Amino acid sequence: MLERSAPDPSVVARVAELAGLAKTASLRLGLLSRAEKDAALHAVADALEAAIPAVVAANERDLAAGRERGMAEGLLDRLMLDEARIRGIAGAVREVAALPDPVGEIVRGSTLPNGLQIRQVRVPMGVVGMIYEARPNVTVDAAALGLKSGNAVILRGGSAAAQSNRALVEVVRDALAGQGLPEDAVVLLDEGGHDAARALMTARGLVDLVIPRGGADLIRTVVLESTVPVIETGIGVNHVYVDAEADLDKALTILVNAKTQRPSVCNAAESLLVHASVAEDFLPKALTALAGSGVVLHVAPEVSEHAQAAGAAYTLATEADYATEWHRLEMNVVTVPSLDAALAHIRAHGTMHTEVIVTESRAAARRFVAEVDAAVVMVNASSRFTDGGQFGMGAEIGISTQKLHARGPMALPELTTTKWIVEGDGQIRL
Amino acid sequence: MLERSAPDPSVVARVAELAGLAKTASLRLGLLSRAEKDAALHAVADALEAAIPAVVAANERDLAAGRERGMAEGLLDRLMLDEARIRGIAGAVREVAALPDPVGEIVRGSTLPNGLQIRQVRVPMGVVGMIYEARPNVTVDAAALGLKSGNAVILRGGSAAAQSNRALVEVVRDALAGQGLPEDAVVLLDEGGHDAARALMTARGLVDLVIPRGGADLIRTVVLESTVPVIETGIGVNHVYVDAEADLDKALTILVNAKTQRPSVCNAAESLLVHASVAEDFLPKALTALAGSGVVLHVAPEVSEHAQAAGAAYTLATEADYATEWHRLEMNVVTVPSLDAALAHIRAHGTMHTEVIVTESRAAARRFVAEVDAAVVMVNASSRFTDGGQFGMGAEIGISTQKLHARGPMALPELTTTKWIVEGDGQIRL
Repeated sequence: MLERSAPDPSVVARVAELAGLAKTASLRLGLLSRAEKDAALHAVADALEAAIPAVVAANERDLAAGRERGMAEGLLDRLMLDEARIRGIAGAVREVAALPDPVGEIVRGSTLPNGLQIRQVRVPMGVVGMIYEARPNVTVDAAALGLKSGNAVILRGGSAAAQSNRALVEVVRDALAGQGLPEDAVVLLDEGGHDAARALMTARGLVDLVIPRGGADLIRTVVLESTVPVIETGIGVNHVYVDAEADLDKALTILVNAKTQRPSVCNAAESLLVHASVAEDFLPKALTALAGSGVVLHVAPEVSEHAQAAGAAYTLATEADYATEWHRLEMNVVTVPSLDAALAHIRAHGTMHTEVIVTESRAAARRFVAEVDAAVVMVNASSRFTDGGQFGMGAEIGISTQKLHARGPMALPELTTTKWIVEGDGQIRL
Repeated sequence: MLERSAPDPSVVARVAELAGLAKTASLRLGLLSRAEKDAALHAVADALEAAIPAVVAANERDLAAGRERGMAEGLLDRLMLDEARIRGIAGAVREVAALPDPVGEIVRGSTLPNGLQIRQVRVPMGVVGMIYEARPNVTVDAAALGLKSGNAVILRGGSAAAQSNRALVEVVRDALAGQGLPEDAVVLLDEGGHDAARALMTARGLVDLVIPRGGADLIRTVVLESTVPVIETGIGVNHVYVDAEADLDKALTILVNAKTQRPSVCNAAESLLVHASVAEDFLPKALTALAGSGVVLHVAPEVSEHAQAAGAAYTLATEADYATEWHRLEMNVVTVPSLDAALAHIRAHGTMHTEVIVTESRAAARRFVAEVDAAVVMVNASSRFTDGGQFGMGAEIGISTQKLHARGPMALPELTTTKWIVEGDGQIRL
């Protein structure tokens, strides 16, 4: 069981104070009309574009600090904000304004035999805490999605982006205040270190939901330590299974896309499972293509000759490799004797994010879809499609890999809860 | 922060073993057709009726042990199973069979511009842990609702009902085996003491959801200690607010019904808030009626004269009283100077279960409905209607007072999650 020391009481008190401000703001946000929220979002977008020089200057301080600490180029690139990116962020805010308002949607309803009229209506969660890492665009995305769904947000960004986040949140809060809205709709929590994050995730009664976005360690910490309800996001150890009856041309295209199109994201593929009966045909092409894209292979023993023949950089895969989200140009490769073995491998090592089968067999596809337990199960398509934008949701606050409340890409409706409204005329229970 | 010692490793291992059996069973349950599940439910109901003597005998051992320990009559009554109650339990199982199958329902779907066909389909959670107290009917209800929704259930009942639960679960498991279904679809966890419950609620990867049903202490423990996702249920500090523009006859009827019709349940009312402008008219009638039903009052100072005049048993209410779920014939009584004050009192002391306004004012009703943050908000109706059966759901596994996943009465759909199925023809992300 977890043994932890108590967080610094002054930090806990400060977080409670900020969360209380957010809670108070949320009471008003929940009552805003769509028109008021959309006007505020447009004001935020305009203000972001007007503040480009200030935000870029703040971001340059983060970048300089990052370089000084020897931050990797890839991370520096994720952290970087220039005019084009800030205009892109502002554009995303305007897109959120254009989305339908989830609040007020009637999910179901009926008139009971005794005449009571009941309806279940979407309402905001209240206060949503976001705990996330480097990319500062998440700061504005979360604020915009929170506002549109009537929630106050408490943002706990990574320290690497501290200056950028501070600048962005200041712009957003000023824009809200300019619209007569409570600026504590968006609260930045950028002090207090790890204790502040812990205080946030245990602020029951003030915070209604915590969403962690980041690496596996961050997410595990939040899931294990939080006493506020959590939506677990985004760890994807995703498999591409090439079935005995796969169209191997499709398989090759899907495999390369799933692994290499953007390897750093959670919907990239990490493991290739090949049915033994097509391994001799498929592996030479597949491993040559992967090697040609610079993918380092972690292979099962029976695959090593193919890896060598393909001229690939490879090592023998360990059990730990099979459960690793590489997040870069590395991939596990295994052959399986059957669909059942593929299903067992996925059950043992998958993270219930996105699993792909490539097959022309109706029976195999039906079994895979029925038996794989994952947020998204695909037949003959790249895992990279698991994305709120791709799914037509218009936005995405994260990809849930848990089963409670939301599963897969999450957008505005997933940031709401419901309320039953019961209207009567004096009815009592008999 | 919580400081806890590690649970007994042998208990943890035993719980993991049982949960593993349930997980394996759940893989088959998720693939059953509605017809197979309904046939199994009818077999369970028939078997329960055939086993009445054995179940009654086991129950008598629990009752004897309870009497020996000086268990209160009310609790003994909740624990008691006789032929009529067992037939009632069997009947409830047949009602579950008659309900629609939530599994396979398509929640939404579309064809994307690139031709990918996507659909979000209800699937079982997997393994659901129930941690509950005295009433043994919950054992069979949970098994039946679990089976119908394709989930395996792990049942952690109260020790007071240990013999009854063992007998009931044996009947259910035998009936499932007789239908060729895995008996580990229903697993009883009746050993290992508190460590077993803790092991259950931290069995991540084996248990998909834990639902605690019982008193406030049980629920708080589960919410704070669980690392498996939890649905918090059933603590109801519910208010009846009698507005300045209430029809006082309706108010009286609703108040008495909400407080006295069944005071031991979570949808009973615990606090009466009366607008000051109608207090002189309403309180004499209301308090006389409550006193006449044997309700002990916890009153604000301004109410004490009325309580005395009504001949009621009363004390001055403390702050703690306002947050107390009495669960018996006791009630807080307060006057409020305004609707705003009523809303503030509910915000401060309510548990977001069921809140009632009695008013003929459209404006007051609209504000109350919009601003009260609760699972169920009622206008001119008794709080006792917050119930899956009353809402037309046909069954109830509990009443959620949290915002994540389910809110208010929960039935079969709330025991499912979803899976996105994406079908393509070789599509890749560009």
